[in-house]
Amino acid sequence: MERKKNISMPVIKRLPKYHRYLSDLLINDVETISSKELGEKIGFTATQIRQDLNCLGDFGQQGFGYKVKELFNEISEILGLSNGYKMIIIGAGNIGQAIANHNKVHGLDFELAGIFDVNPKLIGLKIQDIEVTDIDELVSFLRATPMDIGVVCVSKNNAQAVADVMVKNGIKGIWNFAPVDLELPEEIVLENVYLIESLLTLSCLMNDRT
Amino acid sequence: MERKKNISMPVIKRLPKYHRYLSDLLINDVETISSKELGEKIGFTATQIRQDLNCLGDFGQQGFGYKVKELFNEISEILGLSNGYKMIIIGAGNIGQAIANHNKVHGLDFELAGIFDVNPKLIGLKIQDIEVTDIDELVSFLRATPMDIGVVCVSKNNAQAVADVMVKNGIKGIWNFAPVDLELPEEIVLENVYLIESLLTLSCLMNDRT
Repeated sequence: MERKKNISMPVIKRLPKYHRYLSDLLINDVETISSKELGEKIGFTATQIRQDLNCLGDFGQQGFGYKVKELFNEISEILGLSNGYKMIIIGAGNIGQAIANHNKVHGLDFELAGIFDVNPKLIGLKIQDIEVTDIDELVSFLRATPMDIGVVCVSKNNAQAVADVMVKNGIKGIWNFAPVDLELPEEIVLENVYLIESLLTLSCLMNDRT
Repeated sequence: MERKKNISMPVIKRLPKYHRYLSDLLINDVETISSKELGEKIGFTATQIRQDLNCLGDFGQQGFGYKVKELFNEISEILGLSNGYKMIIIGAGNIGQAIANHNKVHGLDFELAGIFDVNPKLIGLKIQDIEVTDIDELVSFLRATPMDIGVVCVSKNNAQAVADVMVKNGIKGIWNFAPVDLELPEEIVLENVYLIESLLTLSCLMNDRT
């Protein structure tokens, strides 16, 4: 299938949600679904669904709905899941361990290839069969084994330095959990998860209603 | 100060970021800051800053910039930080433990009052001086001690049931980490953190650049 290019950012942001719902449909052996039914499940309008999926390629057959498996595969492809991205986690504290285990639980095709920390109490610990390695070995590790994604689970004060080392040694994407805005070269993809900001948004909305 | 009401959702979403930067300025003893300087730090335009803060109240003095402490306090207030919201965490696995410790690290005024789990291996474990309690005691706990925020760190399959019990017993806001769209009464505030969707967004953007 000819894939359309230049998918807009709002559509990209919605793709993981489509992926999640289509995955559920596949598990439940649903073969086809109409834009109306899919919309009701996801909480988007049928028009929104048709517009979004039209951006990706030619899936629907008028009157027959979308083929779930085909759509799921194509979205997985666009999400880069067939690239087998390799990732490392820097920081083996609670968040780092949570991410290591979370990745395993969800069975996605990201290969966790290393976990690094500075804390002697954590070095040597096994998480998902991967031994936590001394951060001093990070550079030599990256030079020997090119990685795609670096997950930053260190403190705010160390996050930029850790990101700089990874970028200098070939990492292409940073998944950042430190509450800081990293400064990275333009070609590096950055995705932040600011937990505290999420909690503050919740709190703000609760306060707004009282 | 007269606070303006009806703060728009985009502004609400930016407030935690203002809070983070103002907190840093306070720590560094900065007393006043112009919209231009604040904009350069945060990465917003000076016009954006003035528009946003103008929504909140009358802070700036023409030519003198914003009083950092006053602005920080007012934003904290709007974020509900002076309400001393009490929260409980359901699910004491990696994510639950990460949240428990994260909250402590950042010294915010949310009071973590309980952690619940179904797993006998976790029940009795102490996290931040709080003993993990059997989830069977959740209802009686909530009836005796009204809580504001419930953090859902259980599996996808159990998340809705856990949320329902909390809502039925007075919880006003749900911070959900399970990869599922919860159905909640309209008056309940919901904030989701979909970790896998964040990782998929990163992966999609990386794939888009190759």
